[in-house]
Amino acid sequence: MKVVVVVGGVGGARFLLGLKAAVPDAEVTALVNTGDDVWMHGLRICPDLDTCMYTLGGGIDTARGWGHAGETWTVKEELAAYGAEPSWFGLGDKDIATHLIRSRMLRAGYPLSAVTEALCDRWQPGVRLLPMSDDRVETHVVIDDPENPEQQKAIHFQEWWVRYRAEPVAHSIVPVGADEAKPGPGVLEAIAEADAVLFAPSNPVVSVGTVLAVPGVRDALRETKAGVVGISPIIGGKPLRGMADACLTAIGVETSAKAVGRHYGSRKAEGVLDGWLVAEGETVDVPGVEVRAVPLLMSDVDATAAMARTALALAGADLA
Amino acid sequence: MKVVVVVGGVGGARFLLGLKAAVPDAEVTALVNTGDDVWMHGLRICPDLDTCMYTLGGGIDTARGWGHAGETWTVKEELAAYGAEPSWFGLGDKDIATHLIRSRMLRAGYPLSAVTEALCDRWQPGVRLLPMSDDRVETHVVIDDPENPEQQKAIHFQEWWVRYRAEPVAHSIVPVGADEAKPGPGVLEAIAEADAVLFAPSNPVVSVGTVLAVPGVRDALRETKAGVVGISPIIGGKPLRGMADACLTAIGVETSAKAVGRHYGSRKAEGVLDGWLVAEGETVDVPGVEVRAVPLLMSDVDATAAMARTALALAGADLA
Repeated sequence: MKVVVVVGGVGGARFLLGLKAAVPDAEVTALVNTGDDVWMHGLRICPDLDTCMYTLGGGIDTARGWGHAGETWTVKEELAAYGAEPSWFGLGDKDIATHLIRSRMLRAGYPLSAVTEALCDRWQPGVRLLPMSDDRVETHVVIDDPENPEQQKAIHFQEWWVRYRAEPVAHSIVPVGADEAKPGPGVLEAIAEADAVLFAPSNPVVSVGTVLAVPGVRDALRETKAGVVGISPIIGGKPLRGMADACLTAIGVETSAKAVGRHYGSRKAEGVLDGWLVAEGETVDVPGVEVRAVPLLMSDVDATAAMARTALALAGADLA
Repeated sequence: MKVVVVVGGVGGARFLLGLKAAVPDAEVTALVNTGDDVWMHGLRICPDLDTCMYTLGGGIDTARGWGHAGETWTVKEELAAYGAEPSWFGLGDKDIATHLIRSRMLRAGYPLSAVTEALCDRWQPGVRLLPMSDDRVETHVVIDDPENPEQQKAIHFQEWWVRYRAEPVAHSIVPVGADEAKPGPGVLEAIAEADAVLFAPSNPVVSVGTVLAVPGVRDALRETKAGVVGISPIIGGKPLRGMADACLTAIGVETSAKAVGRHYGSRKAEGVLDGWLVAEGETVDVPGVEVRAVPLLMSDVDATAAMARTALALAGADLA
């Protein structure tokens, strides 16, 4: 069985872990958001790709959900001693080794997809991790300029998210470069050949939404023979984790499983979903989409696996 | 008083410490060898500049003589876990912060001299550290190809020195790029305006020799009104530290204070020296050069300061 999953970082990585447990023999391809990627201190940092790679490869700090287990912070402290900016990003020493290899390969002309494959050689995530695109796409957030109250300014998503904890109101969120980006090698083929396509309970705006913004991806999702099923990251009107509500507000979507399901929309209309998993106890209507309510908390791998199995069944995959 | 010192790494840095103690009010400019510099893992590493900067700035590992006090090695271990080559170079975590800042500035178009000044803002070495050149010069060593015994191959000086401990016979040592290099900003002016020019007891081939290989430097040394005095790095036929003998053999110079003095030569002939300090008890004749025998071991700052004072006096500087 071939399963394609559209993912962001922490939530997506945990979902992939559960999915692997649910269908260990399936060929899983993750289409990973790269809109969070950023150059910092001359290093190319790909938070979502790395979170998936470390999580599936057994190297993640499970308590924190991102970064390496046993991480140290010497380089970051030393950069701060130089007064080098930015200093607000959690740049761990082990992580820097990954970034050094990636940056060197990118500068040598390798596309991000090839770099990711090379890095995965070590981590053996057991899932094919495909960057949504080899082209540079970076999500920017428009906020009020704190130094110039009458003006607005665009900052990198990481700055908004990590530095400012998504507190400044986002007037808009723009995946810069997405319009001109091409899907990464294998992305459209994976969707076309899938037996099931799932949207992990990742951020609908800056994770799943960014992948969907790459030209060709929506069309491929609308055309695949596979069922497409999303898992709501919103439970009881609150994001499962992170600050997805601030992102949804920015694009004028209410923070509710219903509103997000309708935002994705039905394949029978102009949307991309056949099925939509919402949290147990919620009654949600998304026209043209089969909605099922199940326990959605990814509290452990077993719970996540059960959720993944339901999603696959809803997508029409043969679980026998 | 203006003093210019031609230096390499560890020996040069220790000499500068002693010189500063000898003449705390002097304006000291170090012309630093950059032929050891190398790109590694996408980082520009300048071992001699950094050793001088850390030593004079109080950050050096005094026991080892290079690298940071309290250094850690997480990034290096993680790079090795990826199988990323080279793995033989001592790339410390704190050091990496320096390299990241330098590499980013170089890629942004700043010359090495400006980068060095920016890094020194933090370390306040109390000495002006000038790269011998802003142009890329890298010393390569020609050895027998271990995989192809009938052929020779050129490897970077760092590989020969650090990886192979200078054990493979060096057929030749070439400062690649030196011919086309221009002296760094301020280098020729510092020599012209100096009251004394000293050669630290650094490697005569790959440290002092490389600085002398930059077009214009020899002429400036021959033309300056200041006295030029070298300090022998060879004591009793053995290098003070390091493996200078292997380098001298490669260029056909005997490992002795006499041979190195004659290699530098007198300003009255085609050379660059007015004076030559050799170790106590040695009788050395270098035609046209005033030779003085004094204790040369840089066992502590006081001993080094005494040596520096003698060198300055020999150069005709006014120490009153």
